Amino acid sequence: MTVDIALQEQLKALDIQILELLNQRARVIAQLPPCSAGQWDSYIVELQQTNTGTLSNEAVKRIWQSLNSNMVNTDDSERAHYLYEKSPNKWRTIVDLPNSASIGAGNFQIIAGPCAVESYEQLDAMAQVLSSYGVKILRGMAFKPRTSPYDFQGLGEEGLAIARQVADKYNMVLVSEILDASQIPMMYDYVDIFWVGSRNMHNSFLLRAVGEIDKPVILKRGFGATMKEWLMASEYILLGGNEDVILIERGIRTFNDWTRATLDISAVPLVKQHSHLPIVVDISHSAGRPDIATGLTAAAIASGADGLMVEVHPNPKQALSDAQQQLTPEQFADVVQTVARFQREPIAQL
Amino acid sequence: MTVDIALQEQLKALDIQILELLNQRARVIAQLPPCSAGQWDSYIVELQQTNTGTLSNEAVKRIWQSLNSNMVNTDDSERAHYLYEKSPNKWRTIVDLPNSASIGAGNFQIIAGPCAVESYEQLDAMAQVLSSYGVKILRGMAFKPRTSPYDFQGLGEEGLAIARQVADKYNMVLVSEILDASQIPMMYDYVDIFWVGSRNMHNSFLLRAVGEIDKPVILKRGFGATMKEWLMASEYILLGGNEDVILIERGIRTFNDWTRATLDISAVPLVKQHSHLPIVVDISHSAGRPDIATGLTAAAIASGADGLMVEVHPNPKQALSDAQQQLTPEQFADVVQTVARFQREPIAQL
Amino acid sequence: MTVDIALQEQLKALDIQILELLNQRARVIAQLPPCSAGQWDSYIVELQQTNTGTLSNEAVKRIWQSLNSNMVNTDDSERAHYLYEKSPNKWRTIVDLPNSASIGAGNFQIIAGPCAVESYEQLDAMAQVLSSYGVKILRGMAFKPRTSPYDFQGLGEEGLAIARQVADKYNMVLVSEILDASQIPMMYDYVDIFWVGSRNMHNSFLLRAVGEIDKPVILKRGFGATMKEWLMASEYILLGGNEDVILIERGIRTFNDWTRATLDISAVPLVKQHSHLPIVVDISHSAGRPDIATGLTAAAIASGADGLMVEVHPNPKQALSDAQQQLTPEQFADVVQTVARFQREPIAQL
Amino acid sequence: MTVDIALQEQLKALDIQILELLNQRARVIAQLPPCSAGQWDSYIVELQQTNTGTLSNEAVKRIWQSLNSNMVNTDDSERAHYLYEKSPNKWRTIVDLPNSASIGAGNFQIIAGPCAVESYEQLDAMAQVLSSYGVKILRGMAFKPRTSPYDFQGLGEEGLAIARQVADKYNMVLVSEILDASQIPMMYDYVDIFWVGSRNMHNSFLLRAVGEIDKPVILKRGFGATMKEWLMASEYILLGGNEDVILIERGIRTFNDWTRATLDISAVPLVKQHSHLPIVVDISHSAGRPDIATGLTAAAIASGADGLMVEVHPNPKQALSDAQQQLTPEQFADVVQTVARFQREPIAQL
Repeated sequence: MTVDIALQEQLKALDIQILELLNQRARVIAQLPPCSAGQWDSYIVELQQTNTGTLSNEAVKRIWQSLNSNMVNTDDSERAHYLYEKSPNKWRTIVDLPNSASIGAGNFQIIAGPCAVESYEQLDAMAQVLSSYGVKILRGMAFKPRTSPYDFQGLGEEGLAIARQVADKYNMVLVSEILDASQIPMMYDYVDIFWVGSRNMHNSFLLRAVGEIDKPVILKRGFGATMKEWLMASEYILLGGNEDVILIERGIRTFNDWTRATLDISAVPLVKQHSHLPIVVDISHSAGRPDIATGLTAAAIASGADGLMVEVHPNPKQALSDAQQQLTPEQFADVVQTVARFQREPIAQL
Repeated sequence: MTVDIALQEQLKALDIQILELLNQRARVIAQLPPCSAGQWDSYIVELQQTNTGTLSNEAVKRIWQSLNSNMVNTDDSERAHYLYEKSPNKWRTIVDLPNSASIGAGNFQIIAGPCAVESYEQLDAMAQVLSSYGVKILRGMAFKPRTSPYDFQGLGEEGLAIARQVADKYNMVLVSEILDASQIPMMYDYVDIFWVGSRNMHNSFLLRAVGEIDKPVILKRGFGATMKEWLMASEYILLGGNEDVILIERGIRTFNDWTRATLDISAVPLVKQHSHLPIVVDISHSAGRPDIATGLTAAAIASGADGLMVEVHPNPKQALSDAQQQLTPEQFADVVQTVARFQREPIAQL
Repeated sequence: MTVDIALQEQLKALDIQILELLNQRARVIAQLPPCSAGQWDSYIVELQQTNTGTLSNEAVKRIWQSLNSNMVNTDDSERAHYLYEKSPNKWRTIVDLPNSASIGAGNFQIIAGPCAVESYEQLDAMAQVLSSYGVKILRGMAFKPRTSPYDFQGLGEEGLAIARQVADKYNMVLVSEILDASQIPMMYDYVDIFWVGSRNMHNSFLLRAVGEIDKPVILKRGFGATMKEWLMASEYILLGGNEDVILIERGIRTFNDWTRATLDISAVPLVKQHSHLPIVVDISHSAGRPDIATGLTAAAIASGADGLMVEVHPNPKQALSDAQQQLTPEQFADVVQTVARFQREPIAQL
Repeated sequence: MTVDIALQEQLKALDIQILELLNQRARVIAQLPPCSAGQWDSYIVELQQTNTGTLSNEAVKRIWQSLNSNMVNTDDSERAHYLYEKSPNKWRTIVDLPNSASIGAGNFQIIAGPCAVESYEQLDAMAQVLSSYGVKILRGMAFKPRTSPYDFQGLGEEGLAIARQVADKYNMVLVSEILDASQIPMMYDYVDIFWVGSRNMHNSFLLRAVGEIDKPVILKRGFGATMKEWLMASEYILLGGNEDVILIERGIRTFNDWTRATLDISAVPLVKQHSHLPIVVDISHSAGRPDIATGLTAAAIASGADGLMVEVHPNPKQALSDAQQQLTPEQFADVVQTVARFQREPIAQL
């Protein structure tokens, strides 16, 4: 009992001392410029390295996060913690493209093309149709990340050369998938937008590398990735100085079996709520079937998406990959019509 | 070798015999009226019971399914296999409601109200707001299926009486959840539409029971149910003779953690593709957060939904259940405005 | 810039000091007896009275609440919050069965039988085999909750009568699925254990009903249910006074496609950690294929399961339901052998 | 009506006859040697020539193709299609390690260590404990793929140097994660086993690169990857000539929230069924909590796993990453004891 009282007094004395130091701390912080959540995270790691005591580093982290959130008096919602987050200064990113098209903040674009470049003739035929509908961004994939090493892996650099030629002919912007950081120098001369695929969303090495180039990057959501992981993947790119990141929602893996994946339409308003980055909806890989293309297109635009990604093929049944899900030119015409109808009704407040 | 040849001849003789019988069979079938997939399924079960041979019943099923699909020469897409499926005669079901509202085939309705009836005052205040916005279907839940037996379970019959009184006052149609077939006689006098919740979608006993009443039934998708299971659950109801079934998509369970469930927006065009039944989108239980309500509303309508289900509460923070997700009257006003804007743009072809 | 660096150094120095004091504080607290939330609240008020600095008293309160929650480890494990939870007085439930078998706390049982009762001959043949292997609990399903209303729905009460007769003949305990509370009086005379299936786990009406009978209840986990929901479903039963609840893990729905569901083996040690109820593993519905039966059996027992649920059929290929997953008597013999080998090695500490 | 019933009876009688003939047919086919698709095609053409009835020759072709696929059981299991598949010549791969340990085909290994190398002292302390328990493979991660770019990313090459020094001191084999193909030359001198993480499982560029080196590769399953995708990822490595691939199951993403991921224990017997590659179970990332470690260890070994991956830290609470899930040395001792008990009971037939 006596011991308890002594201990209680000890505790009180300690807490008074701590409180005094916290007040000093609050005054110092008030004089410092705002500090990003990232900087705080790094700072806390440094502090943890000085921790030799009874508290776990996990507790130190939680305590300091709490201290910070209880000391800053500015309205938290006004302050961007991460680079991907909206702030009063950065509300909506608009990515300008070489052919004077742009995407984001009401500038809507369709990204279309076959699953993969198969030949000059195939891509030329496709681009002619697409550009006749006003499509400005051409999907020209030359490196395909396939489940099986025995499946068609793309035409490689030869495919890029074809795609560049075709894009130039129709004044389209070329987007193509990159599989590894080492491909940057070679691909740089061919493509206008680098595409980081679903299977590479967690590849921080590649994310950092495309963060250092001066061309826009499309970042697809991993099919097993949470919203947070996806946005943090964009942070890796933004941190390198590349501000032109375009997000693509492409469906997540669930138990559903009537669609290839489950299009997570909530991702669109969630991205609009949390981030300034443009978001595009991929209606091909999510559904994996062309018969619900117009319904998903309408949903995507109405919910606030800045663009649409669609696989179209002159003759889907002959395609070397993704034969099941590519649209015919006729089906694509319906999609374009749906886009036209709903674009006259933008959701202003988003 | 000689044995093999003998066996081959035996096989050939058998196959010629079988072929002759199959031709006879085709002639008999040509004279029979069309038969639903369900009837075939039952027929095959009978046939399996006569099977005493080498073939598995699984193989018998597959073989006869193949025989049937290869004998009927009518264009299969024209013929309804299940009662829930579209057919030339039954393209879109319109469910007529007592207050001369209707739902389906372009007739759009908002179903709204608090998560649960808490008191006359609460529901009256809510219904006044809702009816001022033109809402015609009132959500008045008196039996709540909760995860914990210690949570608020609803007011029971007293809640139904309140809900009936309020619905009458504002000329609204009352929908309320049924938990067990034994509640039908009691509930029948209070409610206009019976609601089978997500947790009961697989309860075939209840499904059969509500299939025999003459009031419309709302059937929510189970959060772990495939499209097929959900539509087959509607088949249980339709089979009883009740043709007024309204489907509600309410999100499925995935690894996502920024939303309570994952709204499966593809369900809307898929239902439109496969079924004549009206489909409503529940933007409350899917998202579990009010800040993306307008985005999801827009997506739902644009994709072709026949209605919207929204939880609204005069003061969500005081709610006895689902406090996190119910909209305030102000947030609901934004939803109504979004509905108005998009309804002028119906997707005709859907 | 220089100022900033000086300030940053000041901040770091302060934080290192604070951290050292917090560590001292943690050591003091570790020696103090547990302290109620009320006592802490009073203490914080005292501390606020010493606050003369920059921080608001509101901030002081939040910070100290956070400090306490990150330092104090009140031992919660000793206190049962729910009826399903372990407590010093109720560590492991043992369910006694009529044929003097029992399950739980080291008493291991195999529950086996065909997916459904198809005829007296089928069940008798099966029970003979099973009882020859020492199986004491017979699965005799007469009401099958099927996805399609056209599929075989079970033999109904006739099936129960057959099952009862067979169970008596081989001195086995009979377990059979109940679909609706109204079936209790009829079924009561036939069955020894009531079985609440995966599709009815969320049916609180049924759960309450079986909570009031004096026969054991098997509660299968819903294929879309979290651990918490499953254990809370058991709470509904326990709350009615029925203490004889047996849990069955049967796999959850995921994107996996080589198995029918995904057996959540972690459920076994989690149940052992949190609950006194016996847990059984269903290797049939989880895998949906017989070729990994022994591997899953071994995993189930080794992880601490109190029993195994296996579908066995004299001739699976002829089965009227679940033909793909039922074991042949030969495959079942391998399972029994695996059980025998691993039971000699119980995980004592579980 | 009467006509219909007569016709229905005629149909039933015909079908019973057909079924009897099909059973005879199945018995004949069972005695015939396997027959190529080409031979069947010719046979069907002959049969069509006997067709004089109502059925089209096209229908005859489709029906007989279906009959054959439902009757013939060509034994496929003898033939390896992919390099990862079992074949009579390659039943079980044994990977030999530099310190004369080996893994696969009954040779069981524990791979253990902290989540990341933090300092020489930390790893040395850890390795001393681990080697005292006979652990032969040291986890020494120097490059951490983190969700946030602000989180601790590992010590880099400095960490590898520390890990090499420590591994040598205790005669342990060093395994470390590679993030990008460009790291191979640098890492080659430090590590004994290359580790391809869950986030890189779909990175075909990296897979091909490690397929060309002469050191073993650990391939973790992606948390969103199907069994097929995982095994096909191993095919990318095997195709390069590197035969020493070790698979690690680490849990998949589901709606479960009491564990970090859901350990897919079925993966163990499925891999054993389909592949000759060794499979290890990661009980740390799957559970994300140490309190069910022994239960999962027991399940892993009993189901046939060739090894265990465990994160252990001298003081988990101080860890710079994965603080929640790393075991203390005491908890690890329990795991080792569990391994010892179950290894005396190997599942021979697996």
